[in-house]
Amino acid sequence: MSRLTLALDVMGGDIGPRVTIPASIKALENDPMLSLLLFGDHQQISPLLSGLSSRFQERLTVHHCSRTVSDNRPLAYMLKHSKGTSMRLAIESVQKGQAQGCVSGGNTAVLMGLSKILLQPLKNIQRPALVSIIPTITGEHSVMLDLGANIDCSADNLYQFALMGAVFAQNRLDLVYPRVALLNIGIEEIKGHRSIREAANLLEKSTALNYVGFIEGDALLNGRADVIVCDGFSGNIALKTLEGVAKNLISMFRGNSASNNTSHICKHTLEWLAKKLFFKGNLQRLQQIHPDRYNGASFIGLTAVVVKSHGSANIDAFSYAIADAALQVRQQIPAKILCGLQQY
Amino acid sequence: MSRLTLALDVMGGDIGPRVTIPASIKALENDPMLSLLLFGDHQQISPLLSGLSSRFQERLTVHHCSRTVSDNRPLAYMLKHSKGTSMRLAIESVQKGQAQGCVSGGNTAVLMGLSKILLQPLKNIQRPALVSIIPTITGEHSVMLDLGANIDCSADNLYQFALMGAVFAQNRLDLVYPRVALLNIGIEEIKGHRSIREAANLLEKSTALNYVGFIEGDALLNGRADVIVCDGFSGNIALKTLEGVAKNLISMFRGNSASNNTSHICKHTLEWLAKKLFFKGNLQRLQQIHPDRYNGASFIGLTAVVVKSHGSANIDAFSYAIADAALQVRQQIPAKILCGLQQY
Repeated sequence: MSRLTLALDVMGGDIGPRVTIPASIKALENDPMLSLLLFGDHQQISPLLSGLSSRFQERLTVHHCSRTVSDNRPLAYMLKHSKGTSMRLAIESVQKGQAQGCVSGGNTAVLMGLSKILLQPLKNIQRPALVSIIPTITGEHSVMLDLGANIDCSADNLYQFALMGAVFAQNRLDLVYPRVALLNIGIEEIKGHRSIREAANLLEKSTALNYVGFIEGDALLNGRADVIVCDGFSGNIALKTLEGVAKNLISMFRGNSASNNTSHICKHTLEWLAKKLFFKGNLQRLQQIHPDRYNGASFIGLTAVVVKSHGSANIDAFSYAIADAALQVRQQIPAKILCGLQQY
Repeated sequence: MSRLTLALDVMGGDIGPRVTIPASIKALENDPMLSLLLFGDHQQISPLLSGLSSRFQERLTVHHCSRTVSDNRPLAYMLKHSKGTSMRLAIESVQKGQAQGCVSGGNTAVLMGLSKILLQPLKNIQRPALVSIIPTITGEHSVMLDLGANIDCSADNLYQFALMGAVFAQNRLDLVYPRVALLNIGIEEIKGHRSIREAANLLEKSTALNYVGFIEGDALLNGRADVIVCDGFSGNIALKTLEGVAKNLISMFRGNSASNNTSHICKHTLEWLAKKLFFKGNLQRLQQIHPDRYNGASFIGLTAVVVKSHGSANIDAFSYAIADAALQVRQQIPAKILCGLQQY
């Protein structure tokens, strides 16, 4: 593993430092080559770092700032008034080369806006996108984008998402010629928005991409496609709907398997259910796909790695988002996307 | 129960008469006051009716037609060439007053188009919508619309869906002042398409409607809203995503509880899971919310009852769609929506 530094907006998310600081320490424990720049309010951060052993202290640098990105204002206002905020300073440290990537649980639109302004989209990219990895019932994974960065998308936008998603899936999921599908409300070619039908035409003509057609909401987890492409609005609705059901289910499995009342046979039933529903493996694999481990959607199409954590992430989830950013830096995802796009 | 007649497009759906005819007989068994007009190919229908007792025969009338709505063509083409098809004849029989409602598992867009042309929208309704009832984890139900009839929607369209949905929920779910929410990608007022934000402004100003704000995909089953309003594209994606997970899960429960290998304790585990996940009740309630019973989305905003069955519906599911249409006719849903709209 190579040495690397990430910048964290520790004020972002619903809870702020009480989640992000313990998560940072956890990430340092798990990754001995990782250093972190923490941007946030010193007064809130310091007590959470007291008593920390020096081997962690030396890999943590706190950059005090008292301002945070305000929420619930028009995007233009929030961007304009972002100077000196923890989110902006974290992104600026990447811009200056002090860190190789950034993680924030703050406002998605502002993170996207600032990242585009400060870190710039890759050459020829019209719209960076928010991408995530989702598990499938076949025990594999799919890549899904856009998940909320671009709520209105043209056919060209969707086509570029397909290209970026294919490169992302090749690298992150280690796939050759990944199968690309467009999310739609039917599989017939006349279905859906005009932009989707036109994107389908573009994708059908592309020999570089392995386009397999439309996919509907009920097939998202079926593993029929490695890359699922959609506009940010429907992608966000679909992913959150999935998460809502999956989270209930998985927390039930975990709650039950941890309970003292759980008999041997119940555990078998749970294993069987787990197997049928999400996995070919066993409860260990169920543990592996805890939603916390799927925290961390990534902006792709930028010159550097930016990971957006769920605002409601807990300590484990935020530490996974940090680990995800570290992995993307080590895998050189932005450079590979640039290189991949030039090949198409 | 009052006597009534429904018109069925027995050629619609993935399987056609082999599903729709046994489903029709089942519906007649369950509803002694129901008569059915069957529109479709006599050659395919007759063998499926052979040996049927006279008490059912006298409540069934077969209207032969060999044409069906073609699929995979532009909507305008399909509408233009719909004359003499089973779907169109079924709707025309409602138009002529020979039947009080219609059920089809055929192409949604054509069914919508023909229903609008032949049955007309209610006065002042801009866009009829596709509505369905979904179960919640609190053991109650919500109404969700639009589910695919209108893929692009203005703020005014969404506002009308809210009005229609509220009337539908009042009557079908027996609710007073139902809570109305807009499906969005966040709960903050700056989130989502402009049309959604403008619809939120309209709904906030309306004292007649109990508007409770935005709802995200992960809260769809949480029972936080009685009426969930969205454009037809995202509604279709969200509902199908929900159905995909729920269908897997419920078929597992049923499969397991039917198995000879299921021990007493396993059954308890299943009950506990069922309780936690979807119900406050027990496995009997799980049976009650089998997806088949949720087959049958309804077009509302028309002068008559039109129910769209899933194309992939099995015999049980199609018979529930027939029963749903009968219930809506008896509840006089179109008249109540018209009356309800005039009150707002």
